[in-house]
Amino acid sequence: MGLHAGRHFLQIPGPTNVPDRVLRAMSMPTIDHRGAEFAELGKTVLSGIKRIFKTSGPVVIFPGSGSGAWEAALVNTLSSGDQILMFETGHFANLWAALAKNLGLKVEMLSGDWRSGVDVEQIKAVLAKDREKKIKAVAIVHNETSTGVTSNVKAVRSAIDQAEHSALLLVDTISSLGSINYCHEEWEVDVTVGGSQKGLMLPPGLGFNALSEKALAASENASLPRSYWDWKSMLGPNQDGFFPYTPATNLLYGLREAIEMLEEEGLDQVFARHDRLAEATRRAVRAWGLEIQCRSEKEHSSSLTTVRMPGGTGANALRGIISDHYDMSLGTGLAKLSDQVFRIGHLGHFNELMLAGTLCGVEMGLTLAQTSFKPGGVVSALDYLAETAQANPS
Amino acid sequence: MGLHAGRHFLQIPGPTNVPDRVLRAMSMPTIDHRGAEFAELGKTVLSGIKRIFKTSGPVVIFPGSGSGAWEAALVNTLSSGDQILMFETGHFANLWAALAKNLGLKVEMLSGDWRSGVDVEQIKAVLAKDREKKIKAVAIVHNETSTGVTSNVKAVRSAIDQAEHSALLLVDTISSLGSINYCHEEWEVDVTVGGSQKGLMLPPGLGFNALSEKALAASENASLPRSYWDWKSMLGPNQDGFFPYTPATNLLYGLREAIEMLEEEGLDQVFARHDRLAEATRRAVRAWGLEIQCRSEKEHSSSLTTVRMPGGTGANALRGIISDHYDMSLGTGLAKLSDQVFRIGHLGHFNELMLAGTLCGVEMGLTLAQTSFKPGGVVSALDYLAETAQANPS
Amino acid sequence: MGLHAGRHFLQIPGPTNVPDRVLRAMSMPTIDHRGAEFAELGKTVLSGIKRIFKTSGPVVIFPGSGSGAWEAALVNTLSSGDQILMFETGHFANLWAALAKNLGLKVEMLSGDWRSGVDVEQIKAVLAKDREKKIKAVAIVHNETSTGVTSNVKAVRSAIDQAEHSALLLVDTISSLGSINYCHEEWEVDVTVGGSQKGLMLPPGLGFNALSEKALAASENASLPRSYWDWKSMLGPNQDGFFPYTPATNLLYGLREAIEMLEEEGLDQVFARHDRLAEATRRAVRAWGLEIQCRSEKEHSSSLTTVRMPGGTGANALRGIISDHYDMSLGTGLAKLSDQVFRIGHLGHFNELMLAGTLCGVEMGLTLAQTSFKPGGVVSALDYLAETAQANPS
Amino acid sequence: MGLHAGRHFLQIPGPTNVPDRVLRAMSMPTIDHRGAEFAELGKTVLSGIKRIFKTSGPVVIFPGSGSGAWEAALVNTLSSGDQILMFETGHFANLWAALAKNLGLKVEMLSGDWRSGVDVEQIKAVLAKDREKKIKAVAIVHNETSTGVTSNVKAVRSAIDQAEHSALLLVDTISSLGSINYCHEEWEVDVTVGGSQKGLMLPPGLGFNALSEKALAASENASLPRSYWDWKSMLGPNQDGFFPYTPATNLLYGLREAIEMLEEEGLDQVFARHDRLAEATRRAVRAWGLEIQCRSEKEHSSSLTTVRMPGGTGANALRGIISDHYDMSLGTGLAKLSDQVFRIGHLGHFNELMLAGTLCGVEMGLTLAQTSFKPGGVVSALDYLAETAQANPS
Repeated sequence: MGLHAGRHFLQIPGPTNVPDRVLRAMSMPTIDHRGAEFAELGKTVLSGIKRIFKTSGPVVIFPGSGSGAWEAALVNTLSSGDQILMFETGHFANLWAALAKNLGLKVEMLSGDWRSGVDVEQIKAVLAKDREKKIKAVAIVHNETSTGVTSNVKAVRSAIDQAEHSALLLVDTISSLGSINYCHEEWEVDVTVGGSQKGLMLPPGLGFNALSEKALAASENASLPRSYWDWKSMLGPNQDGFFPYTPATNLLYGLREAIEMLEEEGLDQVFARHDRLAEATRRAVRAWGLEIQCRSEKEHSSSLTTVRMPGGTGANALRGIISDHYDMSLGTGLAKLSDQVFRIGHLGHFNELMLAGTLCGVEMGLTLAQTSFKPGGVVSALDYLAETAQANPS
Repeated sequence: MGLHAGRHFLQIPGPTNVPDRVLRAMSMPTIDHRGAEFAELGKTVLSGIKRIFKTSGPVVIFPGSGSGAWEAALVNTLSSGDQILMFETGHFANLWAALAKNLGLKVEMLSGDWRSGVDVEQIKAVLAKDREKKIKAVAIVHNETSTGVTSNVKAVRSAIDQAEHSALLLVDTISSLGSINYCHEEWEVDVTVGGSQKGLMLPPGLGFNALSEKALAASENASLPRSYWDWKSMLGPNQDGFFPYTPATNLLYGLREAIEMLEEEGLDQVFARHDRLAEATRRAVRAWGLEIQCRSEKEHSSSLTTVRMPGGTGANALRGIISDHYDMSLGTGLAKLSDQVFRIGHLGHFNELMLAGTLCGVEMGLTLAQTSFKPGGVVSALDYLAETAQANPS
Repeated sequence: MGLHAGRHFLQIPGPTNVPDRVLRAMSMPTIDHRGAEFAELGKTVLSGIKRIFKTSGPVVIFPGSGSGAWEAALVNTLSSGDQILMFETGHFANLWAALAKNLGLKVEMLSGDWRSGVDVEQIKAVLAKDREKKIKAVAIVHNETSTGVTSNVKAVRSAIDQAEHSALLLVDTISSLGSINYCHEEWEVDVTVGGSQKGLMLPPGLGFNALSEKALAASENASLPRSYWDWKSMLGPNQDGFFPYTPATNLLYGLREAIEMLEEEGLDQVFARHDRLAEATRRAVRAWGLEIQCRSEKEHSSSLTTVRMPGGTGANALRGIISDHYDMSLGTGLAKLSDQVFRIGHLGHFNELMLAGTLCGVEMGLTLAQTSFKPGGVVSALDYLAETAQANPS
Repeated sequence: MGLHAGRHFLQIPGPTNVPDRVLRAMSMPTIDHRGAEFAELGKTVLSGIKRIFKTSGPVVIFPGSGSGAWEAALVNTLSSGDQILMFETGHFANLWAALAKNLGLKVEMLSGDWRSGVDVEQIKAVLAKDREKKIKAVAIVHNETSTGVTSNVKAVRSAIDQAEHSALLLVDTISSLGSINYCHEEWEVDVTVGGSQKGLMLPPGLGFNALSEKALAASENASLPRSYWDWKSMLGPNQDGFFPYTPATNLLYGLREAIEMLEEEGLDQVFARHDRLAEATRRAVRAWGLEIQCRSEKEHSSSLTTVRMPGGTGANALRGIISDHYDMSLGTGLAKLSDQVFRIGHLGHFNELMLAGTLCGVEMGLTLAQTSFKPGGVVSALDYLAETAQANPS
């Protein structure tokens, strides 16, 4: 390991700080994935993860990253040449689109300014025009990790319904699951894509697909080649707590512990905690006189905040200075936002004083980097955190 | 965790017993996968794993299981409808073939008796007849985990060469890598498929592809849709120790430690250790009067031994009895071998006394299950382990 | 760490193999030893440990080794020059006596042959003669770790009572607690001395004193200087789950987990398991034609077996050979038994197959060391373990 | 474990935050404390700890707390009724004195105001008057953990020398070792007392005595009863890396790792880091308009800061509020300082952003508790930490 004289502050918007309880749970010996002890583990996590996605339907757990779960959502529901409607909320929407193209799908990408969520009206209009129902799926990112902007999933669902369109609704909740309220079933999402390394407080290595009945029906006819990501071969053995191929057992130990932690705190409380820490972050940013990438008050992400550099440049130098002097990692600006923004992750296993340390690191970094800013961000955040203080549940 | 009054004996042929050093290495905090500390980790494991595959060419590391690495080997080198020649050494050869068919490939499967390795002459004959070079790849399993039979990879390579055929050679080394000598480069294999949870002594969750230049060239024209498993998008960032999407950081910590352990012992010594423990196992089986699934002396696996039940039935009852009374997991008979055989894993982090305990558990289980057998297996194994004793390297 | 190609067999009679559950519990962050979270931990272990000692009275937990707990038992109950009656069951009885002398006590040591338990009649006779009640305490070792011989504590209590003597009864249960049935309260012991690193399955670092009311009363007048080991300063804060000086918090985490494990299995079942594994060990030793150090069938220890070398020499060479060739540690012969005996620990987190591996290691070692012995020990043990097999509780 | 939605801030002045590297090192299996692998561990830590105490002489390592090491320093060098001169720097000086009295020593305690270090002139004067050399030892606390005041050890040594007195110099460095420069040999200290749970970044459970030759000579004639704490019985086996009774093996694993970490950073750099973080803390306290317990600029502790409550009361309410609302533990006011002060620990595995989070927690707590203070402490600290920023060594 590198030399750290004190704890590293890992404030990228994922992978997030893994709680000690989860790390310890993961460090138990691997067991026989075809034995009774495993079956109990399997059943526990397969039912528990449903409560996190807020669904009574199946959730498939893959050994793999979130990108794998993106791929799984597409190959199980679509066929070569199928049209898919997407909205360019930012870099991760683009990456998902690129992946779809690689798989032979036709992507219609509605362009966005990377500072707003999905434009629901635009979606509705395109669908309304698609009389032949050539569009087989609408795929959006709930919380765009490159910009810190959320989209209104429920409204997109309504738009599809209002357009009387049959397209499936696929939603990426990778950086919102377990941090921002998300209701797979109530919102009538067909496939929700998740990953382990954000709000679930696990190391990377698990991908998730939550499925609707409509998605399952679509998978019967979808003809994109698939094997590893195939839902059907998963769902059979899952009934008994097993998996068709060797699962990532130790990450499943961690998942069991993480679900337990989230439920001990209570999901509502988890979301409220993230909302509050995010608001404190934004108060700091505004006090610094810096601009938040997200334009609309209604679309702010509670899991990360993307901050624009004054003059539109210098984010990488700033991040380097903060890393070198204060041992903190911040998220980089991705693709066209490179060097223009930095991203503060405030999700997962995270509390007031971790955020306070984080904001102090940013404020000192801004000074060292000679960025044009006004002091006072930390104080604003602290004022808010003191005003809204409540006794911890522990 | 279940109640264990003492250490569980995990003697399935993988996942294997993970050394404490590896579990501890894995339980360190996740770090920024785009930072300098990660880059060092990435470079270390990407270069170290080459030494384990015995190649100077690239080895791609996927977050995923061995099945994913099977899929990766195919989608990067082949196009829809391509022919692939396989040999039915057992259940895993069949699974790989099924996966290939799911992906739209045409599989010619040469039938085998599940008790022998690849019939090289048959391969050669088929290739020789394939004047139009319709066969694009020969895919074989080095160590068939369902039967405990190895195949002669070098001979298959020669057969292809002698047939003057251009087919790629794809080899599954999932249950032999790090346990049985394997030389990706010297044997001129095009794609070698590996996994983390066997001889590498890690939990499941990583898949590997070692590549030849010919395989890389083939990937330029291969048109099967691919994104997650795409080599090219891996190899670019890998140059600097990075990955195109979030890697399974904590498993990479474990991989670094595991490679270090294998090299501290020395690969030759690791293989010799496995050979000796396997021979001791076979001596026990023969002394019990039981039959080994592998027919040929030259094809015995050093990582597991598959044992046939007298009368061809009762393996599941036996395994249940051993699990209930002696807290040991043995491998089950797979597919058509169900209930006919049981499998003893003796690979990975494993030594004489662990094997002795294992064989004692089997011998007592045979008694309890009232299997028809002769006592004396343990004694035969101990005699051999005493005769061949050598001072440990520690 | 040293290089181990497989798990080391730690078969000394303590420290014993620490279960993974306990190691993981211990690796959680240290907490404020004056805070509410600690108080809960403190109360849990202070009440739980009483159930292990089978007492409703206080048990004091010291950061220190078993030797410290020996010292504590003496300095809290006795004054300089006090007489104490002991019985030389072996090396540890002698060590405790030497410690007592160092503290300024007068020790009357009844000599023993190191092959038998305490001679109760002799104790009774000495006490009967002590009309002036100069003897203030009788101190014995329940399970003599150097010889593998147990003593009848209840009978010693009766002897004291029959002699109508006021001496306190002090008992060392270091290597029996949690392995062999022990009843502090029912047997009317005044001070019981325990340690963490044997049947409690913890690393070394905690010492225990279980106290009777008579012992507490004695401590009011005992004038040996004491501070660290003082019971009184412990018992006050213990009421609220706290300690007078910084406790070994992480070992207390481990203790909480270990008590939970012992109670999940059930203490009766734990003792029965040890009895059975000990009997299997003795059957092996007898079949080898070797002599067991313990003379009487009624006094065999269930936590270790001390084996005499034929010819009375060569134990160290044998242990060295076993360590070098089979990576197993056995207990050495102590003091006058040096090189004459070796000791097999079979206590703590231990099961049938761990014992089987252990006995196989001994049998192979006997061969390699060219010790004069008969083969067949392992087979005898396995026969017994198969005859007496029962389904595990898990 | 309690419920923590994010990392607990453990900012008491010890036990301190244990680095993950140390926790992982400690969670390895216990080994045979009489075997070769242990000997290597023993030698490594016994030689390494000398470099931390800056001595070429022996350092004795006890399984026990710092209080035990206090006791060891006295019982090895003194006899019943011996006079010992102490100085009341605060609660811990008093505790050590009480311990000495319990052991039958005569303590002359020079009274202090709990806000200053040892008054060297007073020491010199007392010694000068002691013509008969009745005073056998001078015992002082280098860093008084109850007040955050350091004393000039070198000056005390000079005072003794100038008084031409033969008294031994005993120094408690429990809360300074590894945090504040300390030179056992150069300063000619006779016995230095240390513990594991502060600057050494370990859990509690180890105590240390560094010895001078004069101390060793004194131990030949010292007649206080001793056994567990006896140096002589330690020093023999220590030569070969062993211990006379079962050592706390897993804490020794941790010690090996901690020494390695301290030396990777470099002791000078470790001390400079603590000095800087302490200065930042004091700037915050002053900006808040609060008073620091330590009166003299030259005596400030770099491992903790004791802060006086305005009005002399309310510290416990404040600490409770901070614990409940911000999940941070601060040190309580001890003995006569109860409720009057709180203590901020800033030692061990600790860096700028951990301190920033800590100070933010205090500042918000002061607000919530409606303490009379001026805002601005955090800002002052950040200003200093930015002004003095330097690139981290990693």
